[in-house]
Amino acid sequence: MALIVQKYGGTSVGTPERIRNVAARILETQRAGNGVVVVVSAMSGVTDSLIKLAREVSERPPEREMDVLLATGEQTTIALAAMAIDALGGRAKSLTGAQAGIVTNRVHTRAKISNITPGEIHRHLDDGNVVIVAGFQGQTREGQITTLGRGGSDLTAIAIASAIGADICQIYTDVEGVFTCDPRIVPTARKLDEICYDEMLEMASSGSKVMQSRSVEFAKKFGVRFEVRSSFNNQPGTIVKEETKNMEDVVIRGVSVEKNQAKVTIEGVPDRPGVASRVFNTIADANLVIDVIVQNVSKSGLTDISFTLHNDDVARAREALEPVLSEIGAEGMKALTGVAKLSVVGIGMRSHGGVAAKLFDCLSRGGINIQMISTSEIKIAVILEEARIVEAANLAHETFGLAGG
Amino acid sequence: MALIVQKYGGTSVGTPERIRNVAARILETQRAGNGVVVVVSAMSGVTDSLIKLAREVSERPPEREMDVLLATGEQTTIALAAMAIDALGGRAKSLTGAQAGIVTNRVHTRAKISNITPGEIHRHLDDGNVVIVAGFQGQTREGQITTLGRGGSDLTAIAIASAIGADICQIYTDVEGVFTCDPRIVPTARKLDEICYDEMLEMASSGSKVMQSRSVEFAKKFGVRFEVRSSFNNQPGTIVKEETKNMEDVVIRGVSVEKNQAKVTIEGVPDRPGVASRVFNTIADANLVIDVIVQNVSKSGLTDISFTLHNDDVARAREALEPVLSEIGAEGMKALTGVAKLSVVGIGMRSHGGVAAKLFDCLSRGGINIQMISTSEIKIAVILEEARIVEAANLAHETFGLAGG
Repeated sequence: MALIVQKYGGTSVGTPERIRNVAARILETQRAGNGVVVVVSAMSGVTDSLIKLAREVSERPPEREMDVLLATGEQTTIALAAMAIDALGGRAKSLTGAQAGIVTNRVHTRAKISNITPGEIHRHLDDGNVVIVAGFQGQTREGQITTLGRGGSDLTAIAIASAIGADICQIYTDVEGVFTCDPRIVPTARKLDEICYDEMLEMASSGSKVMQSRSVEFAKKFGVRFEVRSSFNNQPGTIVKEETKNMEDVVIRGVSVEKNQAKVTIEGVPDRPGVASRVFNTIADANLVIDVIVQNVSKSGLTDISFTLHNDDVARAREALEPVLSEIGAEGMKALTGVAKLSVVGIGMRSHGGVAAKLFDCLSRGGINIQMISTSEIKIAVILEEARIVEAANLAHETFGLAGG
Repeated sequence: MALIVQKYGGTSVGTPERIRNVAARILETQRAGNGVVVVVSAMSGVTDSLIKLAREVSERPPEREMDVLLATGEQTTIALAAMAIDALGGRAKSLTGAQAGIVTNRVHTRAKISNITPGEIHRHLDDGNVVIVAGFQGQTREGQITTLGRGGSDLTAIAIASAIGADICQIYTDVEGVFTCDPRIVPTARKLDEICYDEMLEMASSGSKVMQSRSVEFAKKFGVRFEVRSSFNNQPGTIVKEETKNMEDVVIRGVSVEKNQAKVTIEGVPDRPGVASRVFNTIADANLVIDVIVQNVSKSGLTDISFTLHNDDVARAREALEPVLSEIGAEGMKALTGVAKLSVVGIGMRSHGGVAAKLFDCLSRGGINIQMISTSEIKIAVILEEARIVEAANLAHETFGLAGG
């Protein structure tokens, strides 16, 4: 008998009919002789409705009360899922985050899980029940309701899998797994059978948003092997796991694309200590998320600092940086919108040389100009004109032999 | 400084706008120098929607899961009410039934409160907060979510008022208080300033459904003085309290009416021990609620047993009793529908004679025939033809001098 954690997102449990379908799948898994713990999200649309309701009574709802409100979304789903299993002749017990023993810190709306005491989960499992746990929520040591923020239900599933020593954690989504590239961009993209945590993290931070990075980081930290798969069919998905020797044989695991980027350049900055720090602290204070940073030191003693961020944030970045320009003695600032990021990711590049050269070469042959370059140990990212990104992704996908067959 | 518990029902918190109005009233009470604990119901319509959702996944949802589901209704309201108070510049903290320390027995969907540990309520009050508690819900000693059944939020309010030693418990409703009779039936009916628990109980069991009897019984048991008043204006309501000497000066406190009744008679039953027991056990086993019972012993050794019940239950009563008739040697059974019950209630009748005679006399003068009579120490109830009930209520109301002026 295996111990399996299954997580179903909001789309998978979006209607009573889908909840019944999910219940059938859960029972099938249990009747095959497995212990099953299920983590569910709020039905799709419910969280948004609750947020709307909150805004109708308060412009800035207190975060403590926001958590009390939002937690009802998942609580509704656990009850309905348990009812649906019961209606099919199975046995199920629902548990809120608090009841499941999920203890978090006190940071409302984006709490971190401190620990899980899975006594109630084990008790109901031992009685032959499917245990249905509300994702996205927990409670503080003092008994206050908290929520975990974006991607919280995935995190709940992985944390529970770790706490109960599950054999596998299945993350059911509306995609079939992790692909070598987004199939809407590269038609020959194929589903990966496996990927290691670090590759998954680089793919996630490069635009392949199957899961939030924090859940993958948590899984990596506690060695939780999980599978991303579709709730709409029975195909195996992608296993995300610790890296094994033979995984390095594949040089590049995937190509990912992030559109709607902009490149901001602060020009002619005197090359002295403290300038970059002043620039990026200003950006951090404005709560802007930036991505690739490049600084070129020039012989003249002046330098350009460039960074990328989301298109929508350009105006806020300008506003925040404008007052700093004269202070740091910069000559000016310019923003280039309509750029995109292409990343190639793979742990194999640690032991295989020439990956960067091969990427630059294929783009050059395609006549595609590279605006910026950024690399990590297992990723090479380039900033390109957005109009050429589809072409670039297909070239890279082909160059690194990622298409099936 | 007084300690006040306020309870707002589903209609009073039925929309975001109404929640904001309720928040303003709560803050007004607090700013007048009082400590305020508020108990709220689910927004009107929410509980019904949740029940509908449950039926869409299961024909017979398990009661444990029904409680997990329904508890989200009040949890939503507490969060929104706390947000609305915050938006008006006040301070509020919401508590679920479990967080408020409400411990119940294990009977899901109709749990009884075992005790309340109001530590969290006091802690938040001491910090200067309005404390908003979810009505209708609690948890078992083992941490399972329970609900209290119909009228559960009133019960929560009264039980909390008792547990924290509140000075007064205000039950806000969509009526202005307890009236001498339903004003839709008797236009001269007036609001009572006060009524004692026993009168309130007899009124409630006689069709004046301002509150469920169990909440009044609880209040009586623990001596909790409460006020029934309207959430739509600032008029004082009706104080429900222990009986005082001068309350007996009023012979009749009110007249109440219950329509849609039926009278079932089992005819020609041999007058021997065990027959009534057999009949009424059969009815109890069929989960039928009956009201007035009359048995006349005749000289022939045969007797008729009559009882009243709701019109809608006549078919089920027939079905349950049919097989028993021959066993007890009855001659037959007949049902008379279209009857109604008129009750006159008042603790004054204990010390004032002739009340029954006065009632029968006024009905007789009106040419209204009495089908059955039932009395308690402080109530006289008669069963009449439903077509005459409005006339009868007005006659009784006038005869006992209940109209104002």
